[in-house]
Amino acid sequence: MEPLRDLLAPYVKAVERELRRRVPPAEGPYRTLYGMVRYHLGWTDRAFRPVPARTGKRVRAALCLMAGEAVGGRRDHILPAAAAVELVHEFSLIHDDIEDGDRERRGRPTLWAVWGEAQAINAGDALFALAFLTLDALPQRGVAPERALEAHRRFTRTVVRLCEGQHLDLDFEQRSAVSPDEYLLMVEGKTAALIALAAELGALVGGGDEEVVTLFRHFGHSLGVAFQMQDDLLGLWGHPDRTGKPAGNDLRRRKKSLPILLAWQLSEEAAATLRALYAASQVTDEMVAQALHAMEEVGARAAAEAQMRETYGKALEALSRLEKRLSADRLAPLRHLAKLLIERDY
Amino acid sequence: MEPLRDLLAPYVKAVERELRRRVPPAEGPYRTLYGMVRYHLGWTDRAFRPVPARTGKRVRAALCLMAGEAVGGRRDHILPAAAAVELVHEFSLIHDDIEDGDRERRGRPTLWAVWGEAQAINAGDALFALAFLTLDALPQRGVAPERALEAHRRFTRTVVRLCEGQHLDLDFEQRSAVSPDEYLLMVEGKTAALIALAAELGALVGGGDEEVVTLFRHFGHSLGVAFQMQDDLLGLWGHPDRTGKPAGNDLRRRKKSLPILLAWQLSEEAAATLRALYAASQVTDEMVAQALHAMEEVGARAAAEAQMRETYGKALEALSRLEKRLSADRLAPLRHLAKLLIERDY
Repeated sequence: MEPLRDLLAPYVKAVERELRRRVPPAEGPYRTLYGMVRYHLGWTDRAFRPVPARTGKRVRAALCLMAGEAVGGRRDHILPAAAAVELVHEFSLIHDDIEDGDRERRGRPTLWAVWGEAQAINAGDALFALAFLTLDALPQRGVAPERALEAHRRFTRTVVRLCEGQHLDLDFEQRSAVSPDEYLLMVEGKTAALIALAAELGALVGGGDEEVVTLFRHFGHSLGVAFQMQDDLLGLWGHPDRTGKPAGNDLRRRKKSLPILLAWQLSEEAAATLRALYAASQVTDEMVAQALHAMEEVGARAAAEAQMRETYGKALEALSRLEKRLSADRLAPLRHLAKLLIERDY
Repeated sequence: MEPLRDLLAPYVKAVERELRRRVPPAEGPYRTLYGMVRYHLGWTDRAFRPVPARTGKRVRAALCLMAGEAVGGRRDHILPAAAAVELVHEFSLIHDDIEDGDRERRGRPTLWAVWGEAQAINAGDALFALAFLTLDALPQRGVAPERALEAHRRFTRTVVRLCEGQHLDLDFEQRSAVSPDEYLLMVEGKTAALIALAAELGALVGGGDEEVVTLFRHFGHSLGVAFQMQDDLLGLWGHPDRTGKPAGNDLRRRKKSLPILLAWQLSEEAAATLRALYAASQVTDEMVAQALHAMEEVGARAAAEAQMRETYGKALEALSRLEKRLSADRLAPLRHLAKLLIERDY
């Protein structure tokens, strides 16, 4: 964890300051509403007292700043965009936790587990609105009106894609068969779209031209897909000491992740093993070990790793093309970030 | 119903056309997602076949068009703003229905009752995002960038207020005592803010100057508060033949509406009667009749009516001040709309 945390630290500090400026205080008639939002963001305990709780890693906001600064943009111009992207991500987590029935996040009870579903849905909506309000600050910071409007359009389109991706994710849980292509469409909406937006928006607000902005979007998109594929691999073969989760955790949670869908497609026998596990009322360690072994045997692990590496390669290719337009020095933090995200084992 | 429907009809037709252009078709991988949205908007049945179902009255969108046309704006400039306001209203209904556990709306099952809470929360989010996407169309229609950005800011701030109002509404349900002032704050957020925005945004996008835009906001705000007060009166003393709901319906639903809060404040005895009713495991017709009588006796009905009339008067005052700037002819539909909304008995 440390190298990633070290790389992000200077960006995170600026982002946290901006975020805290954007969320109203937990006072007055809306004390509980904004207290809930502040609790979710990791700033307070459930009595709304300040605490040094775990926040998100703020990877998206940091990526936005890195991209914006790589094109020579001023940090105070880019910060509202970076904060807005992070707030949308955080909003989506509040609603995801309700939709998935997850009672815990970052080591603490989720909003709905503390304040009930009704208030948690509404607090998510408020955070959604605050994300747009944060983006509205761009012109005040000196971003030209046309560029601010373009940022709005790209931001909004991405939020629509986010909902489309989440729709597929919820839909897949109800279905027996999901193809790897459908999976990819889901990941592009649910994970990659927002990471692509972070890079794209930073470059746009920072003053990049159309070609540069597009290359940043491609970089973020491929990085986002590769990130999720790596996440899927760690969800099955990650080391419990590093991930903090039991081996084969995604099998235990009956998820439909990439290696699982590939195994399903590659071998009738592996599919039968997985179907049996997914239908079982209780999943034993032995069943998990057997399914993991079957997935390796039929080449699903290798195939998922190959897809991940290929997608990661596309992200690096976009960076190389950017190096023809921008200095390698300025792109160094982005190359470093991509490397750390893909090589992580937790 | 007929005079209001007649007044709105020409506006509704244009608004429906714009709305249908803004919501993606129920096709492809997101068939169910956009099908749910289209079902909620009253366009399809639950198998996503077109039906002539009941839609909303589209009062907010019509008000936006009326205001925009009163300042001399072009309808195609104003339509995205009108549609965006209506979509935000419809989004809030999807989430309200989940939060309140309501299984029926406009004579049909609500989204969550058909597709489950998880998908309904997400469909609400998608509609929320589509509202912003709709507003993003303003510059394409020829609205100047600075004016479009100003529209964005006002739109977003209002959506935040909407969530604040909903927060109070949910909070009040959990509390024993709510003051009339707190009630007013809730109504201003939950109901009046969006109606004020409709009028304000129409005038802004239509090209009105700051004074005119502000007067339209005041008009919409007072009209919105008066509208809700009238709604509260009908929820208690409305005629079942006209409202389609049993007498004293808000008492049966244990709501905390204005006349109830006023009675609570005006008389210890009335408060005791209401407390007994709210604590009862089953509310009988006799208890309802007795509570309604007690509220009339202590002057709560008259006080609520007086507040409603006073607030309505403020809306008309804003219109009169607008008549000094704009032609009375152009303001006639707004005066007519206000009259019909306040005099309605259903």
